[in-house]
Amino acid sequence: MPTSYAHREAEAYREVAAIGERDFVERVQKLLPAPPPMQVWAGDDTAVLEGGRLFAADTLVAGVHFDLAWCEPADAGWKSLAVNLSDISAMGGEPEAAVIGLVLPGDSDRLGDGVMEGLAEAAAEFDCPIVGGDTTVGPELVISVAVIGAAPLEGAVLRSGARPGDTVFVTGVLGGPHQALNALRGAGDPAPSSLAWLRRPTPRLTEGRTAAAAMATAMIDLSDGLGVDLEHLCSASGVGIRVEASEVPLADAAGIDDALVGGDEYELCFTAPDRGLVVEAFDAAALERPTPIGTVTEVLERVLVVADGTERPFEAVGWEHPVS
Amino acid sequence: MPTSYAHREAEAYREVAAIGERDFVERVQKLLPAPPPMQVWAGDDTAVLEGGRLFAADTLVAGVHFDLAWCEPADAGWKSLAVNLSDISAMGGEPEAAVIGLVLPGDSDRLGDGVMEGLAEAAAEFDCPIVGGDTTVGPELVISVAVIGAAPLEGAVLRSGARPGDTVFVTGVLGGPHQALNALRGAGDPAPSSLAWLRRPTPRLTEGRTAAAAMATAMIDLSDGLGVDLEHLCSASGVGIRVEASEVPLADAAGIDDALVGGDEYELCFTAPDRGLVVEAFDAAALERPTPIGTVTEVLERVLVVADGTERPFEAVGWEHPVS
Repeated sequence: MPTSYAHREAEAYREVAAIGERDFVERVQKLLPAPPPMQVWAGDDTAVLEGGRLFAADTLVAGVHFDLAWCEPADAGWKSLAVNLSDISAMGGEPEAAVIGLVLPGDSDRLGDGVMEGLAEAAAEFDCPIVGGDTTVGPELVISVAVIGAAPLEGAVLRSGARPGDTVFVTGVLGGPHQALNALRGAGDPAPSSLAWLRRPTPRLTEGRTAAAAMATAMIDLSDGLGVDLEHLCSASGVGIRVEASEVPLADAAGIDDALVGGDEYELCFTAPDRGLVVEAFDAAALERPTPIGTVTEVLERVLVVADGTERPFEAVGWEHPVS
Repeated sequence: MPTSYAHREAEAYREVAAIGERDFVERVQKLLPAPPPMQVWAGDDTAVLEGGRLFAADTLVAGVHFDLAWCEPADAGWKSLAVNLSDISAMGGEPEAAVIGLVLPGDSDRLGDGVMEGLAEAAAEFDCPIVGGDTTVGPELVISVAVIGAAPLEGAVLRSGARPGDTVFVTGVLGGPHQALNALRGAGDPAPSSLAWLRRPTPRLTEGRTAAAAMATAMIDLSDGLGVDLEHLCSASGVGIRVEASEVPLADAAGIDDALVGGDEYELCFTAPDRGLVVEAFDAAALERPTPIGTVTEVLERVLVVADGTERPFEAVGWEHPVS
C-alpha cells in the first residue's frame, strides 16, 4: 500500500512492540522517584493523581497506528482522541479535557483540517473538549493527545485489584480489527462492522463507569490484544487467569487468535466478584451485557481452555501492538 | 548539517510559522464550542479550566525545534519539558505533572534513553513528575509533552489583561538563542551562554509567580520572538505597546533584531501597573529584576522607538517560530 512507513509485515511490527507502553514504563520507572501513597504514575491505563484526577497520553503515527490507505484523516483524528478516552474508561473515569500535538507534513493543510474535524467530532460525541495544543511540521503525520479526567466515586479501577474467584468479563466482540487489518493486507475481505470499528472505535466510557459501580476489582482496555492485556492484569494483580476459548465473543469472520493477538479493540476487560451485580448494573444502564469469559485463579497460570479441553498459555500468541 | 529535515534556511522556516500555534488555535476555535464562563481554552499560554487548573501541550520535532547536530538527546528531552513548563510559568502557575509521547526512529534505543534522561533531569529540577506516556516508532524523533498545573491564588495571568499605562517588563536577556542558532548555521561563533540556553532553557517559574503576586495584568512567554509575542499581548488585550529599543536587555553578541525575531527565549514578558511593587517583589524573592522596556498605550500602535527617535513597527520583522 502507498503510505510511507506503512504496512510492513507483521514480523516488522514486532519492532513496534519492543518499544511500546511497557518499555516506556520501564524506562520512566528507572529514572523517577516512586509516587506518593494513593497515587499511581506510569503502569496503569492512566496515572491517578491527588483527588482521583486521571492523566494520560497516547501518540498515533501514520503508517504505524493507522494508515491513510484505509482511513480518512478525520478517522485518524477521531481514533486519536478515542484511544485516549478508552484509557480513561478503563479506570471507570469521566474525561474532562484534551490537548493535542499535531505534526503535519509541510504541504498538508487539507490533511490538518481533516484530522482536526475528526478530533472535534469525537470531542463533541464523548463530551471531552479540546482545550489547547499546537501544530508543527515534520516528515510524517503524528497525532499526540493527552487527556485529563476524574476517577469515579468508588475510586479508580486499577489493573492490580483482581482477586481469586473473580469472574473475568469483556465488553463487545473481539478480533474484528485484527481480521479487518489482515484482510486489508490482502487476506480476504474485511467484515464491514470490523472495518468501521478499526477506523472509528468507540471508547467504552459508560461501560467503564458501570463496571466500577458494579464493584469491578481490576480493569484494562484491550489495546494490545486479549492475550497481552490479560497478562498485564495477571502480573499487576499477582494472580492467574483461566479463560474458556469458547466463551470469548468474536466479531464477524474473526477467530480466537484474532482476539488474542489483535489489539486495537478498545473494548474493556474487567474482573468482578459478583456476576449478578454486574448483569444488574449493565441492564439498569441499558447497556449490552458484558460476556464472562473466565475466572481469576490463585495459581499463577495463564491458561486458555480450548474446545476439546486442551489447555495452552493465552499469552504465547500475543505481543504488544501488533498493529498499533 | 547532517540531521534529516534539519537546518533549512530561515526562509523555509517561515513554513513552520504558517502552521504554528496560532494556526492550531484558529482551526480549533472554528470547530469547538466556546468555553464556559471563567475558563480559557485555546489562545493563551495554557488552557485555564475549572478551579484554576492549567493544561497545555507542546510538541518538539528533531530538525525543526532542535537539532541533534548541536545538542544531545538529553538536551532535547530537557528542552521538551522546559518549554511546556514555560507555558505554565507564563500564567503565574505551578506545574503539577507531565505525560510524554515519544516517537523514536526504529533503531534508537540509546536515543530513547538519552531523551528520557533529560526529561527526568528537568522533571526533578522543576518538581514536575512525569506520570505517564508511551513510546512508539516513526521516521523522526518527536517529543510530545503535556503538563497540568495550578493557577496562582491571584488567578491565572492571561494575555488579555494589559491596560494603558502599564509598564512592559521582560525577564533575563534576549536574542541569545537566535544569535547562537545563526552562528551554528555558519555565521560566526555562538556565545557560550546563549548556546547553553538554546540547548537547555530554564522555565521562569519563580519569576512568573512573583509577577503574578506583583499584580501583573498580562503575561506571555517569549517563544515566538519579542515582536510576535508583543503583538499577541496587544491583540489579546486590545491595546498598543511602545517599546524603547535601547532598553531591551540583550544577550552577549545579540542585536535587537535577534530579540525581535528570534524566539526560543523562554523568558517572560509581562505588563504591570506598579513598577515599584514589581521591583520590591522580585527583590524580596531574591530574583534578578525584570527590565522595563516600554509602555502599554491606548492607541493601537506597535511601535519600536530606536536610538535616534525613529519609530518602526516592532512586529514587521517577526514571524512565528523562526527556529521552533
